[in-house]
Amino acid sequence: MEFSLIERIRERTAQGREDVRLGIGDDAALLAVPVGQELAVAIDTLVEGVHFPVATAAADIGWKALAVNLSDLAAMGATPAWALLALTLPNADPAVVDGLASGFAQLAQPYRLALVGGDTTRGSFALSVAVHGFVPPGKALLRAGAQVGDAVFVTGTLGDAAAGLRLVQQGRGSDDARAAFLVERLNRPTPRVAAGLALRGFANACIDVSDGLLADLGHICEASDVGAHVDVASLPRSSALLDLFDDVAAGDFALSGGDDYELCFTVPLRHVATVQADLARLGCGATRIGQIVQGRGIKVRDARGQWLEPGHRGWDHFKA
Amino acid sequence: MEFSLIERIRERTAQGREDVRLGIGDDAALLAVPVGQELAVAIDTLVEGVHFPVATAAADIGWKALAVNLSDLAAMGATPAWALLALTLPNADPAVVDGLASGFAQLAQPYRLALVGGDTTRGSFALSVAVHGFVPPGKALLRAGAQVGDAVFVTGTLGDAAAGLRLVQQGRGSDDARAAFLVERLNRPTPRVAAGLALRGFANACIDVSDGLLADLGHICEASDVGAHVDVASLPRSSALLDLFDDVAAGDFALSGGDDYELCFTVPLRHVATVQADLARLGCGATRIGQIVQGRGIKVRDARGQWLEPGHRGWDHFKA
Repeated sequence: MEFSLIERIRERTAQGREDVRLGIGDDAALLAVPVGQELAVAIDTLVEGVHFPVATAAADIGWKALAVNLSDLAAMGATPAWALLALTLPNADPAVVDGLASGFAQLAQPYRLALVGGDTTRGSFALSVAVHGFVPPGKALLRAGAQVGDAVFVTGTLGDAAAGLRLVQQGRGSDDARAAFLVERLNRPTPRVAAGLALRGFANACIDVSDGLLADLGHICEASDVGAHVDVASLPRSSALLDLFDDVAAGDFALSGGDDYELCFTVPLRHVATVQADLARLGCGATRIGQIVQGRGIKVRDARGQWLEPGHRGWDHFKA
Repeated sequence: MEFSLIERIRERTAQGREDVRLGIGDDAALLAVPVGQELAVAIDTLVEGVHFPVATAAADIGWKALAVNLSDLAAMGATPAWALLALTLPNADPAVVDGLASGFAQLAQPYRLALVGGDTTRGSFALSVAVHGFVPPGKALLRAGAQVGDAVFVTGTLGDAAAGLRLVQQGRGSDDARAAFLVERLNRPTPRVAAGLALRGFANACIDVSDGLLADLGHICEASDVGAHVDVASLPRSSALLDLFDDVAAGDFALSGGDDYELCFTVPLRHVATVQADLARLGCGATRIGQIVQGRGIKVRDARGQWLEPGHRGWDHFKA
C-alpha cells in the first residue's frame, strides 16, 4: 500500500541519532543500544471505535498511538529512543495520512524519538506502535516492588480522560474551555517520561494508569503480593472535572476511568519528600493517595472515612 | 481483552534466554543485546482477506505472521531473538486463539525466539509482529550493495505461493498432494534464516521475495543504482507448480507472484561457488537467475532468448 505515511513521519522525526545505523528503507533497521543500557520494549494497538471515538482528529490519533506506548516506557523509567509503526487504513486519504504523521511527529520530536520501521496495509483503521527505550541494568521501575508501608502516589490528575469521553459521547466536547480541556486529556495524553526517570532509585513500584486507577494499582498489588488503601478524597482531580461533574461522578472517573496515562507508584516513606519535590519541579506534581498494606486487594475509603463496598459505583468498571 | 493468547505463546516459546531480563507481564520487557552486536528490527502486519484468505487455518496464520517477519531478519543476515505481537480479533474464540498460539510457537521454537510482549484488542482480524535479531556491526546484508557483474541468485523455488493462492481461490486447494504442497507454501512459508546467515561476507545485496521477484529485485537495483537481467528459463520452479500450471502461467507466478519469502541476492563471481555449496548444504539451494548490469531497471529474457516487453503477462503485477 503506497501511501507515504511512514516516510512523512520519518522526515519529521529524529534524523541525527547516531544509534540508528540504518533507518527505514531496507528489510529491517539496524540499531545500536548504548553500552551499559538494557532495552525496554513495549507494543500497543489503538483500534478505531475501541480506543478512540470514530470522529477523533487524525492528528490526535497519531499522537495518542505514540503516547500510550511512551507511557509504558515512562512506567519503567526508560528513556525513549526508537519506534516502529504498523498502520492499517481503509483508504489512503491524504488528509488523514498527513494528520496521523503530524500528530505522531509532534510528540516524537521533543524526545528525539526516531521512527525506524513501519508497515502500512489496507484494512480497518488501527495502529500498532512498538517503542524501544534504554534503562541501566537493575534500575527499571517494576510492578513487583511495592513494600508494606509504602506511600501510594499518582502524577497529575485522574478521571479527566474518562470525563472527556463522556462529554464526547454526549456531544458536549466543545461546549466550553473546561470541556475542551477534558477532551484534550482524552485525545492527547501526556506520557510522564521525565517523571518516570526521576523516580528511578526512589519508587519501589510503578505502573501507568491506562485501565483506571483501581485496576492498575491492583496490578501492582498482585505483582507485589500486597494490598492497598486508597482515599477517594485525596485523589487529584482537575477543576474542569469538578466543575462539570458532581462529586460522585468525578470520584468514579478518578477511581475507575481509564486512559489518563498518569503514573501510579509506591515510595518508601524516607523518599516521600524527595519525590514530591522532584515531581513538583517537573510540573506534573505527585499526590499521595493511599498506602500499601499487608494482604490482598484494594480498599477504598470515602471522604467521610467509610470503606466503600465493591459494587459501589466507583467500582463499576473494575474487574479485580 | 482477556483472551490469553499472549500467555499461551509465552508458555510455548523460549523461556531460558538469558538476554530476556524481564519478559511479559510488566509495562515493558527488559532485554540485553549481546556486546558487539547490533539490533535488527522489523514490523509487519497481516490483515484477514488481504494477506491470507478468510478460510485460512488459525495455526497457519500464527505461523505466517511470524514467518514474514523472520524473513525480514533473514534478508538482513540477522539471528532472530525476540518478538512482540499485537493481535486484533473480533472475538475470543478459544479454538482460534489456540491455533494462532500453536502456529506461532511452532515456528518460534527452533529459533529459541522469545515472545517478550504483546497486546490483544477487539476489532477486525489482524496481527502485527515486530521481530528483533542480532547482527555484528557492518555485517548486515543490505539492498544497496549490488555491483555490476554480480550474479543474481534466489533460494528455493519461486511462484509456489501465488499458485497456491490461485488454487485456493478456485477451490482446488486440496485436490491432491501437489495442490496441497503449493497451498502449504502459501500458508507456511519458510523464512530462510540459515541462508541469510550463510550469506554474510559473500552476498553484496539481499532482499526477501515478498512482493514478487521483479518487484523485490527492483528494490535491490534501485537501492544499488544498477540494472539486472533475468532469464525466465532459469527460474527455479517446483514440480508441483510445473505439473499443475502451463509454462506461461508458471513463469508469470515465478516472476511476479508474491509471498514466497525466498531470498534474492547478488554475489560477486569469486564467491559464487562458495555460496552455491553452502546453500546446497543448508537444503534450500541457490539458483543463479541472472546478473547485475549497468543502467536502470530489470530486463527479462524468455526461454528463446527474446527480451520480454513490460506489459507481457509476466509483468502484470509489477509496477516499477
